[in-house]
Amino acid sequence: MSQRTIGVTEVALRDAHQSLMATRMAMEDMVDACADIDAAGYWSVECWGGATYDSCIRFLNEDPWARLRTFRELMPNSRLQMLLRGQNLLGYRHYEDGVVDRFVEKSAENGMDVFRVFDALNDPRNMARAMAAVKKTGKHAQGTICYTISPLHTVEGYVKLAGQLLDMGAQSLALKDMAALLQPQPAYDIIRGIKETYGEDVQINVHCHSTTGVTLVTLMKAIEAGADVVDTAISSMSLGPGHNPTESLVAMLEGTEYTTNLDADRLIKIRDHFSKIRPKYKAFESATLVDTDIFSSQIPGGMLSNMESQLKAQGAGDRIKEVMEEVPLVKADAGHPPLVTPSSQIVGTQAVFNVLMGKYKVMTGEFADLMLGYYGECMGERNPEVVAIAQAQAKKEPITQRPADLLEPEWEKLSADAAKLEGFDGTDEDVLTYAMFPGVAPGFFSTRDEGPKNVGKTAEQLKAEADAASGAANAVRGPIKYKVSLGGRDHSVTVEMA
Amino acid sequence: MSQRTIGVTEVALRDAHQSLMATRMAMEDMVDACADIDAAGYWSVECWGGATYDSCIRFLNEDPWARLRTFRELMPNSRLQMLLRGQNLLGYRHYEDGVVDRFVEKSAENGMDVFRVFDALNDPRNMARAMAAVKKTGKHAQGTICYTISPLHTVEGYVKLAGQLLDMGAQSLALKDMAALLQPQPAYDIIRGIKETYGEDVQINVHCHSTTGVTLVTLMKAIEAGADVVDTAISSMSLGPGHNPTESLVAMLEGTEYTTNLDADRLIKIRDHFSKIRPKYKAFESATLVDTDIFSSQIPGGMLSNMESQLKAQGAGDRIKEVMEEVPLVKADAGHPPLVTPSSQIVGTQAVFNVLMGKYKVMTGEFADLMLGYYGECMGERNPEVVAIAQAQAKKEPITQRPADLLEPEWEKLSADAAKLEGFDGTDEDVLTYAMFPGVAPGFFSTRDEGPKNVGKTAEQLKAEADAASGAANAVRGPIKYKVSLGGRDHSVTVEMA
Repeated sequence: MSQRTIGVTEVALRDAHQSLMATRMAMEDMVDACADIDAAGYWSVECWGGATYDSCIRFLNEDPWARLRTFRELMPNSRLQMLLRGQNLLGYRHYEDGVVDRFVEKSAENGMDVFRVFDALNDPRNMARAMAAVKKTGKHAQGTICYTISPLHTVEGYVKLAGQLLDMGAQSLALKDMAALLQPQPAYDIIRGIKETYGEDVQINVHCHSTTGVTLVTLMKAIEAGADVVDTAISSMSLGPGHNPTESLVAMLEGTEYTTNLDADRLIKIRDHFSKIRPKYKAFESATLVDTDIFSSQIPGGMLSNMESQLKAQGAGDRIKEVMEEVPLVKADAGHPPLVTPSSQIVGTQAVFNVLMGKYKVMTGEFADLMLGYYGECMGERNPEVVAIAQAQAKKEPITQRPADLLEPEWEKLSADAAKLEGFDGTDEDVLTYAMFPGVAPGFFSTRDEGPKNVGKTAEQLKAEADAASGAANAVRGPIKYKVSLGGRDHSVTVEMA
Repeated sequence: MSQRTIGVTEVALRDAHQSLMATRMAMEDMVDACADIDAAGYWSVECWGGATYDSCIRFLNEDPWARLRTFRELMPNSRLQMLLRGQNLLGYRHYEDGVVDRFVEKSAENGMDVFRVFDALNDPRNMARAMAAVKKTGKHAQGTICYTISPLHTVEGYVKLAGQLLDMGAQSLALKDMAALLQPQPAYDIIRGIKETYGEDVQINVHCHSTTGVTLVTLMKAIEAGADVVDTAISSMSLGPGHNPTESLVAMLEGTEYTTNLDADRLIKIRDHFSKIRPKYKAFESATLVDTDIFSSQIPGGMLSNMESQLKAQGAGDRIKEVMEEVPLVKADAGHPPLVTPSSQIVGTQAVFNVLMGKYKVMTGEFADLMLGYYGECMGERNPEVVAIAQAQAKKEPITQRPADLLEPEWEKLSADAAKLEGFDGTDEDVLTYAMFPGVAPGFFSTRDEGPKNVGKTAEQLKAEADAASGAANAVRGPIKYKVSLGGRDHSVTVEMA
């Protein structure tokens, strides 16, 4: 039987620790796995993106560009892959095209090979410039479809979007399922639809999270439909809000007409490496093993907990049910954006406001911008009555052009501003860091010399905790100072283990 | 599109807590879920078996028969299902046919509906009497195929075994994958083979554990091949060494030509119930999230850790690799029995002996019995040289007949012995408890009056632990009153943080 080889993208170095441990993994905890990852036979190694970049400078005192160069050096035979939020780059606003070009150029120069370009609203205009810039560098431009469920999102609609991405020059397509919403049958239908419409040789990569427990089946159906590459995480960095285990994918395909051709011995080494590392970051892990609520609520888990804490802060923790009923209404008014960063926060916060203060009585600036087109277009039409309210409250006109078309060239100003910062090293890379994270970059530049920080626990701390958990904590190790009342008199007493 | 309804067996009340929390769940932690389970639309509710019975009398001071009657009362609309180890019943030896008949009769009388009858060696002769006894009661007799991988185990072999079980009067077949070894393609092939050979209306139930992370895909392929019923556990009692989540199965089938027709609202209630309960038993949980080692080692995780602790006890912890290489040789000598209780322990211990003391220099009594046919036949032929060694060491002849044919009627003696025990209540049920667990039953009978014990943690203990974990335990916050003895005199002391 001739077998079709399925490519695998290993996400342990980026999305896995982003999803499982709040992106806190330090570079020093990854380097020892790189040789095995490089030799295991992956199609690509995802290792860079917005959250890892942010975490590097915010928590780890690591230069994200140095991290990228280290990956390049340690994995010379691999395609390095990143996730790029289109016109937002790795930041939280739209950048002018010149900045987009510069970022892509520098990323390619520092070693990036595959750019997975996406936009939270699936607006192709927000992806076009970044894709063009990637193609100019000769690297791999992958166009992305963010998967969501709504009355407007149909198989046909996704197939049409795929065509727009291919027209823009995408060399492959990613079907991105960040909420683990992609069920087996629609995965099959969308991939079949794309292949039948645009040709069987259109490369399709499938990215699923494992939150709902169902998406390894989704990968199976995707492969049966013709998917070429799928994303997984080595088992010791898998499951829960993360991804399906790489080794389970391998086992799933044994005996079928598909194979991964991954090196089993390398996978064991990679797994063993991260099973030693993972406990260090336990404090950052969520307890979620599996959560299928999203299929009925349509509300991602992270968004729900955000709304709950907003309500609690207002002393209205008991109104979460009303807010959950409000979310689909607000989402429909906004034209059914996928609920993913940043639209999930924008829609969620507005739903909270509507419940607490009355329907659109108070609109957040971000929600007004969303209604007025400043984030781009989504699949559905926006409710004109709510657009009018946004216009009145924000005192801004709605736009129909590509949002970035409103921006003036900004590279010179960004460079000049960055140059004033203590510790700025004069490189374009530093300007980009400042451009994307203007609030965090100054602090990072000024402390960069101190070198990387590891926020994971040390072996000693882990041992102490294990001892504590096993009952040793019942004893006070001390020394601890107590106020002790004896016979009506207070004494200052210091206690420690004898 | 007309959809085929897939039946679901919920295993939360039996195998889920057996696999996840060492079978420790007390009846009082299950009763509140029963009404929802009863109304959710399951094909059956697995709620009784060897380990739950054992745990009831060994750890929980619960009468397992009373537990069964309570389930019957609380779930009047459900098929209650049990796992029955053929001629072993729920114990660890072969019983004479009269005892088998009595056990089945009493189980049916107390409320059991579906008897899943299996044998660790897949020897039909060890299942025949129990199946006949079930049919005599008018209840549902399900014949079981234990799935394993070996050079001898082929799709054709499993299809042939299915035929033997159907010939014995099985009303349905279970394909039982206790080690999560059943990959999607062989599942498809075996089920297709059975349906095509014996008819599409042969009912096939599929039982998979989730240990390797791949078996929800197995269930998908099984369903595509025609499987009628699949086993799952409600999500809050799922995954790891347990089972695939019920809600993920439901989501997996949406949009396909299959449906479960389960009541989503009831599933949420069942899930919420057990997500409150599960933390109580955390101390009994293993840390395994996913483990695919078995595909290369062929050694189930539980067996591996058993062998490791045997080696350590002999100060030979460093020789595990030799033992792992010895296991497949011993298994082959024994005719390739599936590695499941008790054969996994028997083979594993002999492999340890071989490494430590030389090949078959010392044979355990159990391994000699296995070689001499006293557990029954397995698929392969036993190595005649090793049979000769067993014969010499054990001073016993090999047998070829059904092992239970060697047994004399034993009910009268068991009854008489049980009657001498303090606390024996005079019922056949108590005789059966004594027959199956002669070492544990006397203690249980004598303490039964004290009522059930719950070995889970209380809400207060959980809170104290959470506080400890969050660091509060490092100090006594107080105020707490202590009696302090100092220099032979007692003082009343109040302590609080200074």
